[in-house]
Amino acid sequence: MKKILPLISILLLSACSSQNLRGTGDLGLIIERAIGQVQLVEHTGNTSLATIKGLGDLSHASIVYSRDARYGYVFGRDGGLTKIDVLQQKIVKRVIQSGNSIGGAISQDGKLIAVSNYKPGGVKIFNSDTLELIVNIPAVYADGKQSKTVGLIDAPGQLFVFGLYDASEIWVVDMKNIEKPVITKFKDIGLFPYDGLVTPDGRYYIAGLFGEDGLAMLDLWHLEKGVIRIMDHYGKGKEKLPVYKMPHLEGWAMAGDKMLLPAVGHHEVLVMDKNWKQVKAIAVHGQPIFVMSRPDHRQMWVNFAHPRNDTIQVIDTETLEIIKTLKPGKAVLHMEFSPRGEHVWMSVRDENRVDVIDTETFEVVKSLTADKPSGIFFTNRAHKIGL
Amino acid sequence: MKKILPLISILLLSACSSQNLRGTGDLGLIIERAIGQVQLVEHTGNTSLATIKGLGDLSHASIVYSRDARYGYVFGRDGGLTKIDVLQQKIVKRVIQSGNSIGGAISQDGKLIAVSNYKPGGVKIFNSDTLELIVNIPAVYADGKQSKTVGLIDAPGQLFVFGLYDASEIWVVDMKNIEKPVITKFKDIGLFPYDGLVTPDGRYYIAGLFGEDGLAMLDLWHLEKGVIRIMDHYGKGKEKLPVYKMPHLEGWAMAGDKMLLPAVGHHEVLVMDKNWKQVKAIAVHGQPIFVMSRPDHRQMWVNFAHPRNDTIQVIDTETLEIIKTLKPGKAVLHMEFSPRGEHVWMSVRDENRVDVIDTETFEVVKSLTADKPSGIFFTNRAHKIGL
Repeated sequence: MKKILPLISILLLSACSSQNLRGTGDLGLIIERAIGQVQLVEHTGNTSLATIKGLGDLSHASIVYSRDARYGYVFGRDGGLTKIDVLQQKIVKRVIQSGNSIGGAISQDGKLIAVSNYKPGGVKIFNSDTLELIVNIPAVYADGKQSKTVGLIDAPGQLFVFGLYDASEIWVVDMKNIEKPVITKFKDIGLFPYDGLVTPDGRYYIAGLFGEDGLAMLDLWHLEKGVIRIMDHYGKGKEKLPVYKMPHLEGWAMAGDKMLLPAVGHHEVLVMDKNWKQVKAIAVHGQPIFVMSRPDHRQMWVNFAHPRNDTIQVIDTETLEIIKTLKPGKAVLHMEFSPRGEHVWMSVRDENRVDVIDTETFEVVKSLTADKPSGIFFTNRAHKIGL
Repeated sequence: MKKILPLISILLLSACSSQNLRGTGDLGLIIERAIGQVQLVEHTGNTSLATIKGLGDLSHASIVYSRDARYGYVFGRDGGLTKIDVLQQKIVKRVIQSGNSIGGAISQDGKLIAVSNYKPGGVKIFNSDTLELIVNIPAVYADGKQSKTVGLIDAPGQLFVFGLYDASEIWVVDMKNIEKPVITKFKDIGLFPYDGLVTPDGRYYIAGLFGEDGLAMLDLWHLEKGVIRIMDHYGKGKEKLPVYKMPHLEGWAMAGDKMLLPAVGHHEVLVMDKNWKQVKAIAVHGQPIFVMSRPDHRQMWVNFAHPRNDTIQVIDTETLEIIKTLKPGKAVLHMEFSPRGEHVWMSVRDENRVDVIDTETFEVVKSLTADKPSGIFFTNRAHKIGL
């Protein structure tokens, strides 16, 4: 015993230390969409740490993080809401909360997880510890029909904001008192809001419209002003070009007083000033999907829709010119910057690869193997508004 | 054995888990300046977790974090550089690297720690893992004299930037190649630069001048443009009012295209537009020290110099009016916002208290006991530029 016990102690302690005792500030999860799993990575050494299986249908999946950056909440297409412990590298809880969901958000205080649903529609809000349902908000409109909900985001003041695709409405839910959610409804905001974003300061909610041109904008600091229309010509336009994929609004990027956004259908990145007027259109390689700002706002990185999705272009935010065109490979679906911007991670789905690229030299510093990778989500998102 | 071993295993594992297995995204360290220790706190439940002793002279101390948010680097006044493991709640390494230091920074990639020294002057750069000295940069100027260095910050591209107090210079050190640091020196930038800041995007470095009015500004995207002078009337002015404490430049706050900064000596917060021109002066309770933006930029929180340091004022960034005056108690030295801004933590030094205040209701949601608390530093700083 005398000899064995200390030995066992050391083994056990070192075991638990080596596996679990680590900071969570440099971790990330990558969606492996085809096989329902996520890959856990770290961006200090740019390595893969683990694979976590059993998450169901992860097409169009997204992830938010708890405020301690320990738990990732994965929103799956099949209505699955899965809570992952990145330290124990396992699923701690999983619920199928609807038939078909399209993303979610975490409240400012970290205590609430909201999920946006297509079937049956509406938004459900869960306790982030237990995943117990706290509030069900059916998106009911004309004669009792339920709408799909889209573009769900969190905002300061314990708000959740989302669009009602079928009802042409935007709803703002104030969850300060979880016993009595206060819902403010904005009607006739435009046909078929299909996605939304909030500016990085959490102030302006902007919804894209599938049914008409222009954008619906709501100032969350002044709900009394109601929803106004901006960028009247934004959208598919009269020519009705083939749109291979509607752009992701979350990708919109601010740089100083400029905002860059992907045109719909056209091979252009649009530049909007702080008065929400278009001041320029930058010709790019294809139909842009994500236009993402490097954390220091000096560069914007753009990926494109099929069939031109093998290419990435980098725009200089001072000159608004393309300074680099990269060909990472087939189907570059998503990008995520390291928190302070020295690297960008890139999912190259059809080549089962994630590349880590130096944003100054544009060299690939590391390639990781991943199964049909799509979304990449680093834990520093835990501290950001509106993701 | 059969029974004892599993029991031991469980005890050991649960011991190490319960103490160490946690995310690091919601942690913070509070300087307890008089007794050379720091208090470890968490802002999910707003509780104190541990006290870590033996850090030497912590007057005017500051902290940066490793990119995994596990290690805090404490810069003490006595030249001590101390690396703290917030998971094991202990000092892992401590070096006395100079006779008197005034702060430091961590490089964009997290691998380098730079420290700014008064005695003997200059800047030393260390390996963030081992705290081994990598580069010593003596701030030598006219006839071999060494200058105090001030306002040391990190910037994108592995840069460190600092001022030479005695030499009226600003130096930019490019550490992309640690074997060959590239130093760019800017001379005659103004008398006695005493502190500096970089804008949140990491682009503009601004130094305050103790010896004359105005500010020295350097565009880090365009070093070729050199240092220019802005805000000519900023400073003590001709009247030479008594200045109880020079303001902290790190506290400067941006909101949209406005920048709010503490006046020197005067009871005013100044508003600067994006062309660096003063557009307004807001009358406040005393000589402002820190003017800090809530993460969503809707409010600015201001503390004041002795003898008026028992008060906090909150400015609405839209109206530029004071919307709240609080009296937390004697000697409010520092504030830190929770990452998404619902709370602000406040050190009330002479009452040995740290208050956690709701930024919407202005109510105190929690008070923690602390010994002469000063700086409060949350781990989400790990992901920010220029802190």
